[in-house]
Amino acid sequence: MEKNIVVIEGDGIGPEVTRQSVKVLNTIAEQFGHTFHYTYCLMGADAIDKTGNPLPDETIEACLNSDAILFGAIGHPKYDNDPTAKVRPEQGLLKLRKSLQLFANIRPVTTYASLHHLSPLKTKNIEGVDFVIFRELTGGIYFGKKEVNEERTQASDDCVYTREEIERVSHLAFQYAQQRRKKLTLVDKANVLETSRLWRKVVQEIAAQYADVAVDFLFVDNAAMQIILNPKQFDVVLTENMFGDIISDEASVISGSLGLLPSASIGKGAALFEPIHGSYPQAAGKDIANPLGSILSAAMLLDHLGLAKEAALVREAAEWTLSNSFVTKDIDPVNFYFTSTIGELICDYV
Amino acid sequence: MEKNIVVIEGDGIGPEVTRQSVKVLNTIAEQFGHTFHYTYCLMGADAIDKTGNPLPDETIEACLNSDAILFGAIGHPKYDNDPTAKVRPEQGLLKLRKSLQLFANIRPVTTYASLHHLSPLKTKNIEGVDFVIFRELTGGIYFGKKEVNEERTQASDDCVYTREEIERVSHLAFQYAQQRRKKLTLVDKANVLETSRLWRKVVQEIAAQYADVAVDFLFVDNAAMQIILNPKQFDVVLTENMFGDIISDEASVISGSLGLLPSASIGKGAALFEPIHGSYPQAAGKDIANPLGSILSAAMLLDHLGLAKEAALVREAAEWTLSNSFVTKDIDPVNFYFTSTIGELICDYV
Ligand SMILES: CC(C)[C@H](C(=O)O)[C@@H](O)C(=O)O
Ligand SMILES: CC(C)[C@H](C(=O)O)[C@@H](O)C(=O)O
Repeated sequence: MEKNIVVIEGDGIGPEVTRQSVKVLNTIAEQFGHTFHYTYCLMGADAIDKTGNPLPDETIEACLNSDAILFGAIGHPKYDNDPTAKVRPEQGLLKLRKSLQLFANIRPVTTYASLHHLSPLKTKNIEGVDFVIFRELTGGIYFGKKEVNEERTQASDDCVYTREEIERVSHLAFQYAQQRRKKLTLVDKANVLETSRLWRKVVQEIAAQYADVAVDFLFVDNAAMQIILNPKQFDVVLTENMFGDIISDEASVISGSLGLLPSASIGKGAALFEPIHGSYPQAAGKDIANPLGSILSAAMLLDHLGLAKEAALVREAAEWTLSNSFVTKDIDPVNFYFTSTIGELICDYV
Repeated sequence: MEKNIVVIEGDGIGPEVTRQSVKVLNTIAEQFGHTFHYTYCLMGADAIDKTGNPLPDETIEACLNSDAILFGAIGHPKYDNDPTAKVRPEQGLLKLRKSLQLFANIRPVTTYASLHHLSPLKTKNIEGVDFVIFRELTGGIYFGKKEVNEERTQASDDCVYTREEIERVSHLAFQYAQQRRKKLTLVDKANVLETSRLWRKVVQEIAAQYADVAVDFLFVDNAAMQIILNPKQFDVVLTENMFGDIISDEASVISGSLGLLPSASIGKGAALFEPIHGSYPQAAGKDIANPLGSILSAAMLLDHLGLAKEAALVREAAEWTLSNSFVTKDIDPVNFYFTSTIGELICDYV
């Protein structure tokens, strides 16, 4: 099989973790006789530094012509505390999501027995947790009209949703639920927001087409509690963009390490795969970051390309490192291995 | 001292818990020689049932003429799953917040050693947690323009903030931080939202007037993680309306029981005090709900009236019940006391 993969290393620890994934993809390609063509592109603070633009046109172009995108991380503190900055790294990622119509962000939340001791939650609360968050990714308040008046005495962000935007991600989520434990929870704030009431109405309607899926509804404030109080109750969680940003990051603490959680953003064309951990600038360049988030994202990428066996092997290798204590500093601050060593070990296993 | 208190029992378990607080306030009045005049008013589903209006004008009127408001809970499931309902209980509370200009919601997050075993978090993560969330309560997306077109194919909610709205709650939060450990954390999403950038800018400016307070900034997605990963890092957390709704409920799981967390909403005139637990309709009328959230809200009310000694005594009584296992069913499902019994015990102690 021959595939075109765009690689965007991005900011902070993005480059060093992404390189491990590329090594792993190369090993997979060798073992299984595939050819992966890589196109390296810029986005984020790195792209601003080099081109002045957080998302150069060539990056969009390359992504549109690719089969999948492997992405590292975005963001740099120098932009965060300057509320008047005109150009920001995050604009690059938001624009890419919009340009590629990556309307669904998929975040599996799973736990590993060997990491239970690292979780802030009691083991009995997290054993067997296994759910997936579907976050709508190209609508809502992220993309609505933003205004600030000249004197900076008033600002606004508009949150807009259309029925179509809700429908397409909902269908995906229902179909996913059908392949799993057949439960879907919509998270909204329908007691206050008009957009949430539209979400609830559309999801109630769509539910009729998936009679085998049990549906329930949670207000986002309650959901923020339930994710910690009783995460086992969830199977597929569906929600809008901003709520999804918050609750998916909240849910990521369950596993005990943010460093190993992957994500996929899919839509009409090419799909994008990235670890959830962000650019983590304090660790950049030190070869200490956990590459598993990126490597497990590469596994999701392989799945997306239809290479299920290959994906399973990468996951097996990742779990093998964890259960044999081949781990990075975030997991064991005393006996730890370097980012690049974990990458090698996974390649060797594969 | 003579004071006028409006009592709004509200929905679900609201009436039964509020009645315990009134008993406690009466006992305090007797002990300390105060006179509290109570005016009972309607709001929420209860008010809709009786008057068709979730917030009758008489309620607003009475509140405006009162020194403080003791409120139970709001909400009924029959409205939640009907996205087309025109009248909703929550409209009552939102309108009251706006009418009384209750612009700051204050939520203490504390833990009790005797309840550590009930927390979903490991004890080492929660020992000594003690922070307060300041949530802006009368602006943002809750009160912006809401629209839905006739065919229900598109809906929108506008999030607007003015500099003044941000300033007034920020000053309160900074002053509060000065009385505590002198740390303030602003939670926003300044890498995406224009309103958040205004928040960050205004808070940066105000910080200059409170040089003794250390300020930091967290994106809301990161805050949702930090609240669980390391809640001890927080002293005063300041945030906008919607983020505050989500993270304050999230933070409420730390203590091990939602049933005992109080809140205060303050502004220009009368202030409102309510437990955070909500109407919890499944438990209504069974005399099993935990009255401590309401009773500790009454303690905040006493503080607000300048009755610090009285407030401290109520808190002491509440802690005495907890450490002597006089607890409701939510805390001990086997050996439990009724709502009304806990109320009596606290009165006896006082
Ligand atoms: C970087 C930022 C714009 C982004 C978001 O909020 O969507 C990130 O937090 C994420 O969740 O992917
Ligand atoms: C009832 C509802 C409107 C309210 C809110 O979201 O503000 C509640 O959740 C709260 O936090 O007080």
